[in-house]
Amino acid sequence: MTKWKLVKGGVTAAKGFRASAVFVGIKAANKDREDMALVASEVPAVGAGVFTTNRVKAAPVRVSRAHLRSPHSCAVLLNSGNANACTGPCGIAAAKALAASMAEVLHCGVRRVMVCSTGRIGVPLPLEKMTDKLPELAARLSTSGGAAAAKAIMTSDTYAKEYAVEVKLPGGSLRVGGMAKGAGMIDPNMATMLCVITTDAKLSKGTLQNALHHAVERSFNRITIDGDMSTNDTVLALANGASGGVSIKNGSPEYALFTDALNEVCTRLAFMIVRDGEGVSKFVTVQVRGASSLQAARKVAEAVANSTLVKCAWAGNDPNWGRILDAAGYCGVRIREELVDIYYDGVAAVRGGTAAPTPKDKLVKAVSGDKFTVTIDLHQGKAFYTVYTTDLTEKYVELNLSE
Amino acid sequence: MTKWKLVKGGVTAAKGFRASAVFVGIKAANKDREDMALVASEVPAVGAGVFTTNRVKAAPVRVSRAHLRSPHSCAVLLNSGNANACTGPCGIAAAKALAASMAEVLHCGVRRVMVCSTGRIGVPLPLEKMTDKLPELAARLSTSGGAAAAKAIMTSDTYAKEYAVEVKLPGGSLRVGGMAKGAGMIDPNMATMLCVITTDAKLSKGTLQNALHHAVERSFNRITIDGDMSTNDTVLALANGASGGVSIKNGSPEYALFTDALNEVCTRLAFMIVRDGEGVSKFVTVQVRGASSLQAARKVAEAVANSTLVKCAWAGNDPNWGRILDAAGYCGVRIREELVDIYYDGVAAVRGGTAAPTPKDKLVKAVSGDKFTVTIDLHQGKAFYTVYTTDLTEKYVELNLSE
Repeated sequence: MTKWKLVKGGVTAAKGFRASAVFVGIKAANKDREDMALVASEVPAVGAGVFTTNRVKAAPVRVSRAHLRSPHSCAVLLNSGNANACTGPCGIAAAKALAASMAEVLHCGVRRVMVCSTGRIGVPLPLEKMTDKLPELAARLSTSGGAAAAKAIMTSDTYAKEYAVEVKLPGGSLRVGGMAKGAGMIDPNMATMLCVITTDAKLSKGTLQNALHHAVERSFNRITIDGDMSTNDTVLALANGASGGVSIKNGSPEYALFTDALNEVCTRLAFMIVRDGEGVSKFVTVQVRGASSLQAARKVAEAVANSTLVKCAWAGNDPNWGRILDAAGYCGVRIREELVDIYYDGVAAVRGGTAAPTPKDKLVKAVSGDKFTVTIDLHQGKAFYTVYTTDLTEKYVELNLSE
Repeated sequence: MTKWKLVKGGVTAAKGFRASAVFVGIKAANKDREDMALVASEVPAVGAGVFTTNRVKAAPVRVSRAHLRSPHSCAVLLNSGNANACTGPCGIAAAKALAASMAEVLHCGVRRVMVCSTGRIGVPLPLEKMTDKLPELAARLSTSGGAAAAKAIMTSDTYAKEYAVEVKLPGGSLRVGGMAKGAGMIDPNMATMLCVITTDAKLSKGTLQNALHHAVERSFNRITIDGDMSTNDTVLALANGASGGVSIKNGSPEYALFTDALNEVCTRLAFMIVRDGEGVSKFVTVQVRGASSLQAARKVAEAVANSTLVKCAWAGNDPNWGRILDAAGYCGVRIREELVDIYYDGVAAVRGGTAAPTPKDKLVKAVSGDKFTVTIDLHQGKAFYTVYTTDLTEKYVELNLSE
């Protein structure tokens, strides 16, 4: 039974949200492509956010986190072409000034505006150029502007990433939608991940934050392309209650339906980011089970998913289980090699720490697809964890040779 | 003032050591190339060892570690072509049988023989073929056999790695020599690092172990090609006292001279391994200083040295400091970005967390050489740490696409 249905519109799928995009020319090379976007709620919404855990945090991350303390939020202003990262006190001032100018245009309090940036780092924002375009950006706001906004935040993404669903509730329906930009690492220096989620559900700021935290944990925090974590990673959510339904309380049946929808949107957007990773040819699910703790399962899964050697083998259609066992062995978890089983798409490659009697061509076949699952059973407990990753191709290195 | 002079001979430079190599054909592809080596002391020596910390340990690692508990050691038997890793109880039995057969030929106790293997993993050792060749291997032992032994343990190394020095002591001289094989990751599944050190110094087993531990910490533990750690990594040392000098006590002036020589041999061999890494085009020294603790300095240095994005940038002659700051930020150390300075060969790229006013072409010039130093000053304390690494090239990925 499907609990939701797909709908169009991305961040403008939910009632009471409008979006727009405008061309600024933030980065000289991005001629003609729109590079600044706005997502706004027609009525005051509650906001929630999850930010990079990198100690080096870009100015917009610091400013948006502070602004989120406001009880209400109205809008998110985003730009590509410049990350406003490693720009010192001037960068903070620029991010604040941008939010203030946007708030003035939208006639709302400055702390109701969040800002997100992605692109080159260490270069000052072209503040005046951007500020000049804010009235036009606001004037273009439309209930069908989601697609244009999703496109304007792309950097080296090859396609815009949007997703939205509608959920039936007793006495009405609600929508959750979102847009994201992902794992492009050439043109911005970083693999900045930005995501904006909108919903017309009615719920408290605390409930939204809780739901978002869990959704991010199961989606964006489980994808890895190269193990590097950006200074700008941001997921923001706005809930404006415009669906007119009842207020959703933590733990209620409505909450379960809402979080299912939110998880679905976040997971779909996260998968799109992986699939669109630079020079990526395969989508790989790394499942660890039988771990003694969640932490242990996660460490093993991430070590395997981030091993350069493992990822190179996948790119070469090589079902190399030695490199997987090696990565599991060095990640700091006290595994017992003689207990470990490894499977490619359910086909045993390793049993009890040594080669399983599976013909190699069966394993090669599994790893040759553009999508497969590696399962590592540690046989030490009941904890499990899953991450989603990619192979490492020559094309990836070529694309990342320089900014 | 040089404290030592270079001498020829590798593991046979020191008095009372002989070495040899023989062709077995352990791996079908290695036609004609010698693939089994022996290093033996003419008189009982004391032995010391440092082994992989990977939880997945190859059979020879387990067996050699156990044999090292014996008060005396006589010989190290090494092979390329097969790592005897992930081979279960049969692999352990094979490693023990090999040591026992070698001991019989050499007329010494089985626990006086250590074994090392490198090559394919998950495949049983061709025990009979190897055992048949042991008498020939022993018969070939010679005081000029170091070079042949160093060659026989190569896998995808492009040249044999040997180094030896002589140190003058009051009343005589002593020699420390060694051989190593390195960072080849294509043909063996792993980047196994093997090293054998020999010395005619006279010192106790405990003193030798202590000196070796410190030397490895400053050399082999500071190099990283791709962050992956092998199941077979082994450094063994034998000291036979044949120089006839006084017994070297921990903390004495002679001990300082001995450890300087040992450090020099280990460091030179470690650098050769980095330089000979697969598809490597640059030798990069990553220096972290101003850290609040040694642990913090090490974490930052290793995160930078292992970042896929940082290494790709180096390959492209891109002095990309954003990726370096990013890696420092996500490694778990509580750095303060506004304090961080970054230099390429002493030229400032970052001052106080933002771009330094250095013309970009000066930075490009520094990073374009085949050898440069990146210095990261955290300005939080006095601890420092250095690691030696490489760039990440398309050639590396190509070489590692499959076993």
